[in-house]
Amino acid sequence: MFETLPDVLAAIRPVDRALFPIAKAHLDDLTKPRGSLGRLEEMAGRLFAVSGGARPVVDPARIYVCAGDHGVAAEGVSLFPQEVTRQMVANFLAGGAGINVLAATAGVELRVVDAGCLGGPFPDHPLFIGSRVASGTADLAREAAMSRTQCLDALLLGVSLATQAAAEGVKALGTGDMGIANTTPSTALFCAYLGLSPQQITGPGTGLDAAGVRRKAEIVAKALKLHCEVVSSGDPVAILAALGGLEIACLAGLVLGAAANRLPIAVDGFISTAAYTAARAISPAVADYAFLSHASAEPGYSAIMDAMGQKPLLDLGLRLGEGTGAALALFLMRAGANIYNDMATFSSAGVHPGE
Amino acid sequence: MFETLPDVLAAIRPVDRALFPIAKAHLDDLTKPRGSLGRLEEMAGRLFAVSGGARPVVDPARIYVCAGDHGVAAEGVSLFPQEVTRQMVANFLAGGAGINVLAATAGVELRVVDAGCLGGPFPDHPLFIGSRVASGTADLAREAAMSRTQCLDALLLGVSLATQAAAEGVKALGTGDMGIANTTPSTALFCAYLGLSPQQITGPGTGLDAAGVRRKAEIVAKALKLHCEVVSSGDPVAILAALGGLEIACLAGLVLGAAANRLPIAVDGFISTAAYTAARAISPAVADYAFLSHASAEPGYSAIMDAMGQKPLLDLGLRLGEGTGAALALFLMRAGANIYNDMATFSSAGVHPGE
Repeated sequence: MFETLPDVLAAIRPVDRALFPIAKAHLDDLTKPRGSLGRLEEMAGRLFAVSGGARPVVDPARIYVCAGDHGVAAEGVSLFPQEVTRQMVANFLAGGAGINVLAATAGVELRVVDAGCLGGPFPDHPLFIGSRVASGTADLAREAAMSRTQCLDALLLGVSLATQAAAEGVKALGTGDMGIANTTPSTALFCAYLGLSPQQITGPGTGLDAAGVRRKAEIVAKALKLHCEVVSSGDPVAILAALGGLEIACLAGLVLGAAANRLPIAVDGFISTAAYTAARAISPAVADYAFLSHASAEPGYSAIMDAMGQKPLLDLGLRLGEGTGAALALFLMRAGANIYNDMATFSSAGVHPGE
Repeated sequence: MFETLPDVLAAIRPVDRALFPIAKAHLDDLTKPRGSLGRLEEMAGRLFAVSGGARPVVDPARIYVCAGDHGVAAEGVSLFPQEVTRQMVANFLAGGAGINVLAATAGVELRVVDAGCLGGPFPDHPLFIGSRVASGTADLAREAAMSRTQCLDALLLGVSLATQAAAEGVKALGTGDMGIANTTPSTALFCAYLGLSPQQITGPGTGLDAAGVRRKAEIVAKALKLHCEVVSSGDPVAILAALGGLEIACLAGLVLGAAANRLPIAVDGFISTAAYTAARAISPAVADYAFLSHASAEPGYSAIMDAMGQKPLLDLGLRLGEGTGAALALFLMRAGANIYNDMATFSSAGVHPGE
């Protein structure tokens, strides 16, 4: 177990780059034209490197859907009332949400985490982890969303989820989020970590109209101005505390914990990618363990990917969160691993491409 | 069973457009922001329409990998020797190819069809269908690749595969191809059906260099010139006979047969999309039953999609064929169907988005 963030950071190391040519040599010996399975081969090579040169595996895989509430909801940045966070947690546990269906379809385990919801405790459930750090955040447009202690607690909660999963034999993780209004802190975090402007990347979330988007961009701009000293300090934990959310910090911790435990992690859409961006600012080597799953339909997403120099696996117009993109990506990661492990080589199959 | 092509065409009808708003109303009542599952919802609605308003289903799903050889291989348009077609059929039956791994990963059945390979008959195998129409095609740059009778026989072979699958309870089909040199007839078919130029869309296939691509484009241009009367006649079967291949005609028949049997069909990459283009030219209503799976890495593919007004589901850099893209698409189609069938509604889940 990791007791403190420095303990976690000390355990995170980049993967061994010498493993990539070994993976490529194996993939090139399989019965297909070289490179003809595209990003499935890229994922297979990355999984091989994450595993330290053992067989790439993703199963069993598990998605943690982390939920939290946001003080900034009071600014009217979401069409949905805050109670929906809690109602959706109940829906996850009853099995009726989008992520339940897609996790089952992809053969991925699901856990639901109360990282910072409002209201009383949830009833016990075998898939539920009630480790709330606080009951919602403060309004980031008026004060820091979290104290530094709360932020660190939420990060370490996420780390502990990854460590627990690794101890239980889980071989790959996925991120999922639930939190009404959480595109607002996510947008603020992208601006702070990547130097983007609110006007450039603020989008409609669950369905704001143009006036709503303008208002939301103003809220983000106000928050960035209020916390400009923190942002310009470059302290990634302080930025996350000022502008983030409890479920976002928990997901950032899950990414850090995946890397510390040498597990690949599928990063879901807009909110999870903000959490990943925070984790990467805290420890850049997490990039070796993270698989960006799905392009967000939020209009700022492509500017965010350009700023990060990354491209997600899928672009199916999803904008739900919950880990739905991560579930689909874990299926593709499994496909890549199986290609690596199960295809025949040219010599074993009697296929002679060059004769 | 369908005895003649007119029998097949008489059985193909567009789906009932009145089913789309019914599907949308159901999808909008599920616990998610409207439309937030993007193309998964689009697929769910299309599958609902294909099923005639019953529960959308894709399982059991089955991919037919259809193999054939090509006289145009003698023109040096492929890096791989023609024997590889036969070796890869053996590899499919031994379970070592990319499509074996991805079909297993996606939970999709596989059948391998000799539609027109060279050489002696293949040994019996439970997954093998030895219904060869002819032993390879003629060189399309010098004469018609197939006689009209051969082309019709290959089309009806594909139709019979779909009808047989439907009789066995299969609920969705997928296409796959194997045939050394078959990007050349496919390129010629795209040019003929869509009015594109060989210079615009000819690509490297399994790995030609720039000089090889130029030579291949010249071969395609020569074939189009040789068969210009047929091309300008607009007779889609005559065009397929002149420029296609036995496995391509069989796959076009599989698409027609899917539509005639009211089954959705996932269309694989470059070669299968050429077969789909032929089927659509023969009977435009097949478009309602076809799900384009994967963008081909062939550089002309985006011009082809623009000409057809379509966009595939995936873009992972695959350029293998064999049905590998179709296998991944069938997983996504299953995900769409499961969303439709298994998610909770707002009222049943106690989620109240508007209060």
